[in-house]
Amino acid sequence: YDWARKLGLIRKPSAFISSIVDERGSELMYAGMKISDVFTSNMGLGGVIGLIWFRRKLPDYFCRFIELILMVTADHGPAVSGAHNTIVSARAGKDLQSSLCSGLLTIGPRFGGAIDGAAQKFSWAYDNNLSPQAFIDATRKQKELIPGIGHKIKSLENPDARVTIVKDFVKKHFKSSPVLDYACNVELLTTKKRSTLILNVDGCIGVSFVDLLRGSGVFSLDEANEYIQMGVLNGLFVLGRSIGFIGHWIDQNRLKQGLYRHPTEDISYMNMEYV
Amino acid sequence: YDWARKLGLIRKPSAFISSIVDERGSELMYAGMKISDVFTSNMGLGGVIGLIWFRRKLPDYFCRFIELILMVTADHGPAVSGAHNTIVSARAGKDLQSSLCSGLLTIGPRFGGAIDGAAQKFSWAYDNNLSPQAFIDATRKQKELIPGIGHKIKSLENPDARVTIVKDFVKKHFKSSPVLDYACNVELLTTKKRSTLILNVDGCIGVSFVDLLRGSGVFSLDEANEYIQMGVLNGLFVLGRSIGFIGHWIDQNRLKQGLYRHPTEDISYMNMEYV
Amino acid sequence: YDWARKLGLIRKPSAFISSIVDERGSELMYAGMKISDVFTSNMGLGGVIGLIWFRRKLPDYFCRFIELILMVTADHGPAVSGAHNTIVSARAGKDLQSSLCSGLLTIGPRFGGAIDGAAQKFSWAYDNNLSPQAFIDATRKQKELIPGIGHKIKSLENPDARVTIVKDFVKKHFKSSPVLDYACNVELLTTKKRSTLILNVDGCIGVSFVDLLRGSGVFSLDEANEYIQMGVLNGLFVLGRSIGFIGHWIDQNRLKQGLYRHPTEDISYMNMEYV
Amino acid sequence: YDWARKLGLIRKPSAFISSIVDERGSELMYAGMKISDVFTSNMGLGGVIGLIWFRRKLPDYFCRFIELILMVTADHGPAVSGAHNTIVSARAGKDLQSSLCSGLLTIGPRFGGAIDGAAQKFSWAYDNNLSPQAFIDATRKQKELIPGIGHKIKSLENPDARVTIVKDFVKKHFKSSPVLDYACNVELLTTKKRSTLILNVDGCIGVSFVDLLRGSGVFSLDEANEYIQMGVLNGLFVLGRSIGFIGHWIDQNRLKQGLYRHPTEDISYMNMEYV
Ligand SMILES: CC(C)(COP(=O)(O)OP(=O)(O)OC[C@H]1O[C@@H](n2cnc3c(N)ncnc32)[C@H](O)[C@@H]1OP(=O)(O)O)[C@@H](O)C(=O)NCCC(=O)NCCS
Ligand SMILES: CC(C)(COP(=O)(O)OP(=O)(O)OC[C@H]1O[C@@H](n2cnc3c(N)ncnc32)[C@H](O)[C@@H]1OP(=O)(O)O)[C@@H](O)C(=O)NCCC(=O)NCCS
Ligand SMILES: CC(C)(COP(=O)(O)OP(=O)(O)OC[C@H]1O[C@@H](n2cnc3c(N)ncnc32)[C@H](O)[C@@H]1OP(=O)(O)O)[C@@H](O)C(=O)NCCC(=O)NCCS
Ligand SMILES: CC(C)(COP(=O)(O)OP(=O)(O)OC[C@H]1O[C@@H](n2cnc3c(N)ncnc32)[C@H](O)[C@@H]1OP(=O)(O)O)[C@@H](O)C(=O)NCCC(=O)NCCS
Repeated sequence: YDWARKLGLIRKPSAFISSIVDERGSELMYAGMKISDVFTSNMGLGGVIGLIWFRRKLPDYFCRFIELILMVTADHGPAVSGAHNTIVSARAGKDLQSSLCSGLLTIGPRFGGAIDGAAQKFSWAYDNNLSPQAFIDATRKQKELIPGIGHKIKSLENPDARVTIVKDFVKKHFKSSPVLDYACNVELLTTKKRSTLILNVDGCIGVSFVDLLRGSGVFSLDEANEYIQMGVLNGLFVLGRSIGFIGHWIDQNRLKQGLYRHPTEDISYMNMEYV
Repeated sequence: YDWARKLGLIRKPSAFISSIVDERGSELMYAGMKISDVFTSNMGLGGVIGLIWFRRKLPDYFCRFIELILMVTADHGPAVSGAHNTIVSARAGKDLQSSLCSGLLTIGPRFGGAIDGAAQKFSWAYDNNLSPQAFIDATRKQKELIPGIGHKIKSLENPDARVTIVKDFVKKHFKSSPVLDYACNVELLTTKKRSTLILNVDGCIGVSFVDLLRGSGVFSLDEANEYIQMGVLNGLFVLGRSIGFIGHWIDQNRLKQGLYRHPTEDISYMNMEYV
Repeated sequence: YDWARKLGLIRKPSAFISSIVDERGSELMYAGMKISDVFTSNMGLGGVIGLIWFRRKLPDYFCRFIELILMVTADHGPAVSGAHNTIVSARAGKDLQSSLCSGLLTIGPRFGGAIDGAAQKFSWAYDNNLSPQAFIDATRKQKELIPGIGHKIKSLENPDARVTIVKDFVKKHFKSSPVLDYACNVELLTTKKRSTLILNVDGCIGVSFVDLLRGSGVFSLDEANEYIQMGVLNGLFVLGRSIGFIGHWIDQNRLKQGLYRHPTEDISYMNMEYV
Repeated sequence: YDWARKLGLIRKPSAFISSIVDERGSELMYAGMKISDVFTSNMGLGGVIGLIWFRRKLPDYFCRFIELILMVTADHGPAVSGAHNTIVSARAGKDLQSSLCSGLLTIGPRFGGAIDGAAQKFSWAYDNNLSPQAFIDATRKQKELIPGIGHKIKSLENPDARVTIVKDFVKKHFKSSPVLDYACNVELLTTKKRSTLILNVDGCIGVSFVDLLRGSGVFSLDEANEYIQMGVLNGLFVLGRSIGFIGHWIDQNRLKQGLYRHPTEDISYMNMEYV
């Protein structure tokens, strides 16, 4: 802001600053690019997200990887907290926006949070030159699990198709993927303990995106790190999963489901006598 | 607004108009009353709601009835949609505001909506001089249930304590209660059909509040009706039940409950092959 | 449901039914299609939305049109209610989900609602064989504006690039576009009155999507109409604009903007003395 | 939970545990107290909150202090972020729940957060036997402001009526108030620097509530501290301010205000050319 002020970009103090979209002129602009140019350039939805979130015209493989993440995270069934709350709200007869928000507000540390967590933890370990074993030991010492490692069912022998999709894309299109490679080395050790302690889909997306931000040549290292810290991956998960939540709202309306009430038999009422 | 303009209350056009609270002066004012006077007048929380929602210093029994509604609607257990979604969100590790909103967004036509519905339907029938039987017939003809009538367990023989509390207050403090009396006459007929078709707590609150707004001498009939149409009773339910939802958030945190995932065995997956 | 029951798809009554995504098996499935097949089929994000929202493998131009709508509606600057509330919440230091929801909850009849409104009104008029003039007269008689008609700045002489993008796609890829054609005939008349009374971007998206749902051969007319009534277009707007809202959240964090307080000089305090 | 299990209170594992309200029996119970007893005991709304949040029948002055906090925090005008977003959402034609949530989701570190912050910081300093001067120095060293200290307009000479109301109640009804006394000693020093560096209303509520939880004899010190850490004061602010937000929603509907769009003249568009 100060910098913008000095440059004379801002004359009188205005209450808001905004730097992504300009709707005032003869044509709507995303990060300075006319909407008609957006379409002639064929950048697709990933490109639009690049302009609006990062204020950059991103390379094609970057755009495609953003879309891949959205497709992979679009939904994971009706049982998880977010889909569940969306469904319960839809069945209470609420509109799409309310039901979607009822679901989105459950996304956080325990649901969806492993993507951001993996990105932050693995890049921290990598940047501090911890050996995979040292990283595993350090996490265990803090009595924490490594975010992005482990799966209830999937294992080395029974790999998760989504992980394969992500990895294949990285191998094919990224110039290098040091943090993903590092995470795979961690996986080599954890799966020795237990075959299910694989790099899961959240972890794979998280570390790959770090490699993308850092290695694409579009951002400085500081910028890349700032975006990771800020939670841009959380943004991708929120956006991707919104497809699923809206889908569940449509689905419940299509199926004309009535009000849900959780069965009291499934609740332990631990009432205490008031003092 | 036009009227305010003519009176000269508003000079230059400003983007917002607000008429309930003024924080600019030497003392915070609720509807023109200094906060210190609010306390010396002993109007209590019901009185504060009266000032902020209705811009009126309400009579004492009106204030107490507002508080009674909040106390009666404060919670109804963990099984209903709103409490359930709050609990699921709390167990996903989310903050109080997010969890509360996840629950509040389920309140609507099917959960909580019967209070407003009863107020509107019964006063409509009463104002149109429909006999109780004519009202019952008209509703059945439209293939609708009468909001505020019916209970799963409670009946004439096994009355709901909350209904008794509300009715007793009305009988003791209201000068008259024509819409409640009318609703009780409807109940006389519906309970002949089935003993559980009583005027339930939602219905009782709804019609009593109509009597209060209309009979207190504070509002014109038009004002009273406008508040009913606007959904002020919904506001009371939302505020009252917020006590419960916040309580459930505190409770789940106190009990240190982990992430909830609905059991897939309890979900029928009706997947269709894509065309 | 009954139908599903008869078919024996559902054995014991379970609390939830869900028909879009199955995460239980060896591979995640969207509407019965394995996630790996989703990627080998190259259907893109539009295709994924087709599977999850409509349970159908949609034709390619349908998928591309969904993506086009998301790109066109992705953002419209920081001044509109939804972006504004997201920004105010971001500046209050709130997380991405909370800020996004604070914005999403403003989407409705007056902000974003014209898309659904146009789809419903224009198809109603078209289906009832109203001549364009008869439709205009009917709306004026009800003292309503036609949703999807009119723009503050854009006009016949100064067309909106977004409208051109949408129309060009329709002309190139749809077999026929009766409702869009009808809307253009309405525009011919309204722009005679005033050059700014064009078919705006909301209107153009709304009616084109009706043509798409009805003319793609994928849905029966009843299904197409049900999706319009349900508000699927609202879903597309909500999803598309989420890109912008998340962008504004990132932007305000990048710019390190502090707490916003609306200037009291811009508010008319119309305090009434309490009675 | 384990403890409950051992006691045999919980037989088969159920998905949820809940310990505040039981709606299953012949009469609704708040923390084991029948709703009819709640009313005959005259505990009021503060008492109901005590039962539902703390599972305790609280002493009368405790209940009254809860109500006092709700009354004092009920609203602070239309300019603050939460009221502002509620108003913008109401003007977009949205329902009460959506508008309320749009506002509630702005409550957090910068808006409303000083109450919890003051409670935590001052009790930390008090418990660690820091002298008021040492506490001030420690905070300055961390380049932080003391939450709960400072006001734009109010000062020693021009005291805030709300602070006086809170303090008077404490002095009259609490047996002792060590943390409030400590905070007043801090104020003695900060106001020497600047007359506006008073203990503000957020600070005064925060520290008084610590004294209440600790000194009422109802909770152990651990329980008291757990409630402070958990953010129960945030809960009181959220509940109290909901009165104001709902009031603003009613107010905007009463005033029939139309869609708000922030003036673009008040926004600095800092568009960057895309790279
Ligand atoms: C995914 C997850 C829930 C699977 O759990 P699970 O199969 O039930 O595994 P358990 O919790 O029973 O753990 C089994 C063993 O593996 C270890 N383990 C599990 N996840 C681990 C991790 N992420 N890092 C290190 N060790 C881990 C456990 O400590 C335990 O070791 P122990 O037997 O010596 O006590 C779990 O691995 C996890 O929480 N991972 C981190 C969060 C995450 O990435 N979630 C997104 C999943 S898509
Ligand atoms: C509360 C309620 C769900 C109880 O339902 P229930 O005990 O399962 O009653 P049922 O739905 O089985 O109905 C039994 C009979 O009573 C009738 N009935 C139930 N509620 C009725 C109502 N509100 N008005 C008129 N008739 C009603 C039904 O039509 C049915 O008649 P039938 O046997 O001729 O078909 C139901 O009465 C209701 O929806 N009421 C209106 C909404 C309301 O007030 N909800 C708040 C409750 S606190
Ligand atoms: C977009 C809009 C706000 C532009 O408003 P505007 O340029 O300020 O136009 P005004 O409201 O001043 O109206 C000018 C005249 O056009 C008429 N008019 C405006 N929009 C009209 C519409 N949608 N249908 C029919 N007549 C319309 C007005 O009635 C008025 O006629 P009058 O002079 O005889 O009274 C307005 O056209 C509108 O509300 N359209 C419908 C909603 C919509 O599509 N919104 C999305 C926009 S992207
Ligand atoms: C309330 C508040 C915004 C008032 O700010 P203000 O009057 O504009 O005061 P300023 O920010 O100009 O600060 C003036 C001086 O007082 C000091 N100061 C202000 N608040 C302080 C605090 N809470 N603790 C310590 N010093 C403080 C500043 O450091 C500054 O000192 P300096 O002149 O040596 O740099 C500010 O005091 C504050 O943020 N307080 C903490 C948060 C809080 O309690 N908010 C709720 C208010 S109801």
